[in-house]
Amino acid sequence: MLEKSKYTIEYFINGILKKDRIVLSKAITLVESTKEEDKIIARELIQFCLGTKNKSKRIAITGMPGAGKSTFINSLGRILLDKGNTLAVLAVDPSSSISKGSILGDKTRMDEIVNDAYVRPTASSNNLGGVSRKTRESILLCEAFGFDYIFIETVGIGQSEIEVKNMTDLFLLLLIPNAGDELQGIKRGVMEMADIVVINKADKENIIAAKTAAAQVQLALHLYQENEKKWTTPVLPVSSLERTGMEKLEASIDSYFLKTETNGFLEKNRTEQQIHWFNEMIRIGMMEKIEKNSVIQSYKTELENKITLKEIDVNLAADLLIQKLIK
Amino acid sequence: MLEKSKYTIEYFINGILKKDRIVLSKAITLVESTKEEDKIIARELIQFCLGTKNKSKRIAITGMPGAGKSTFINSLGRILLDKGNTLAVLAVDPSSSISKGSILGDKTRMDEIVNDAYVRPTASSNNLGGVSRKTRESILLCEAFGFDYIFIETVGIGQSEIEVKNMTDLFLLLLIPNAGDELQGIKRGVMEMADIVVINKADKENIIAAKTAAAQVQLALHLYQENEKKWTTPVLPVSSLERTGMEKLEASIDSYFLKTETNGFLEKNRTEQQIHWFNEMIRIGMMEKIEKNSVIQSYKTELENKITLKEIDVNLAADLLIQKLIK
Repeated sequence: MLEKSKYTIEYFINGILKKDRIVLSKAITLVESTKEEDKIIARELIQFCLGTKNKSKRIAITGMPGAGKSTFINSLGRILLDKGNTLAVLAVDPSSSISKGSILGDKTRMDEIVNDAYVRPTASSNNLGGVSRKTRESILLCEAFGFDYIFIETVGIGQSEIEVKNMTDLFLLLLIPNAGDELQGIKRGVMEMADIVVINKADKENIIAAKTAAAQVQLALHLYQENEKKWTTPVLPVSSLERTGMEKLEASIDSYFLKTETNGFLEKNRTEQQIHWFNEMIRIGMMEKIEKNSVIQSYKTELENKITLKEIDVNLAADLLIQKLIK
Repeated sequence: MLEKSKYTIEYFINGILKKDRIVLSKAITLVESTKEEDKIIARELIQFCLGTKNKSKRIAITGMPGAGKSTFINSLGRILLDKGNTLAVLAVDPSSSISKGSILGDKTRMDEIVNDAYVRPTASSNNLGGVSRKTRESILLCEAFGFDYIFIETVGIGQSEIEVKNMTDLFLLLLIPNAGDELQGIKRGVMEMADIVVINKADKENIIAAKTAAAQVQLALHLYQENEKKWTTPVLPVSSLERTGMEKLEASIDSYFLKTETNGFLEKNRTEQQIHWFNEMIRIGMMEKIEKNSVIQSYKTELENKITLKEIDVNLAADLLIQKLIK
């Protein structure tokens, strides 16, 4: 993906230390690369990132399509930038694994931050590791770079939210009023992961509906608040368009980080996340070993033929292959 | 999960051959079980299923929360049942991995089919294998049982749709009119997976909006129709409540199966899906090997300590562990 020899580990480390955003972009391309020589440098680079002392506030921003994520990020991002903070926005799009397109990181809706913030849409491929590895490493790169805030924008319900939850400090869920059953749908799955719930589009004719929705969500949240982090999830109506409710939201974010830093949850959570990713990397690494071993590969082809002829179920076939591979 | 000794492989095979739905339910519980003794019988049972000649029409039914999936299944299911078909409905709920609740397979909204169809909500746990393995094997069980149709109900955008696509013959996407950006959101990710798009809730004041939505979706679909299966995805407005548009939908489903059976796509697709699941089972089996090896487990703990102390990145740690495990 990158030209050889030109991009050394020193090139990347120096660029990141000098806060060169072009080098940062190239570094993210590097960790996204599947080439073997790129991976070696990428691994060194990530090890370097671990050694830096920078700490960014890592915030997941998620919601269904239509919740207004890009406009919200534009609005909240502008406020943070105006106070002298630096900001990176990584947009993770699980749906793009099929379409190769990206429905997130819509720069046209981020026109007020796009010149100051670092915005990187990630059209993630669906191969081994998928969204997770690349995004996790992109976060580490942005953190080493020294951003005060890193937003990880993601869409919808499901697995990608859980993955993003596993690499961020604060999980912010964006809802809209008048969504009816949708709210019900999102509630049990994703809502309990939220550290802050924002009812977006609380403007014009929606103001009353937004307040009602906020009250309902707040009520629902009471049912399953786990208290390890000693934090009660606030539900905040905001208007990204009219910029109302934003001060309160910003105060909530500050308060969340202050609290979780003080009581040790933030650090503990990051450690647990590392262990989680260790397991992920084992899984991915094992599959790569299979792909690169020619004896195993030809045995695999043999088994695939038997599966096709319905001589063997995939479970048994998998057992046989694993027996050949493992000590 | 099941009592020992009472449930033998003969018990399950005989029950399935006799079309005993209580045995089918127990068999699904068996393939969902994580106990070692259950797994051995489950594997035998799945091998038996492969040998049966029954072929069900496997239909994925997906859509955002609020799209009216349960009501739609109730309505379409009733029509199919009235024509003398048998039907199983498997509801896969990815969100329940967190809440342990299930937002799908809502039997109260399936009151017209629940006495005739076999309805099984699957509150899937998020452990190794997750949704995929259990659902795939439940489908095989239902197919061996001899159902004419198997509906696999699933929710939302994301990974679970891709998994379900990988175990069904026909992917039916349910949309609603007036969803605005939502439609945009779902479009690029999931829409191109659809073999049939249904615009649900095309009733009362929504009729015109439904037609507009149908035209828009049809236009969008033209942009990325792949033609391996020689099928043009129809976009059909229906009302699950008023039962309008259902005949046309049923004709479309018939026509899809006729076409893909005739041109060989159906069989080819199922074979490709088997190969896909083979790879999944390898992945899952490898992780189980790690969990059960005490030497590897203690080395893993050692590495986890180093990760916690930031002495080592998770990538390198994973490499070291894999080296110890693989031949």
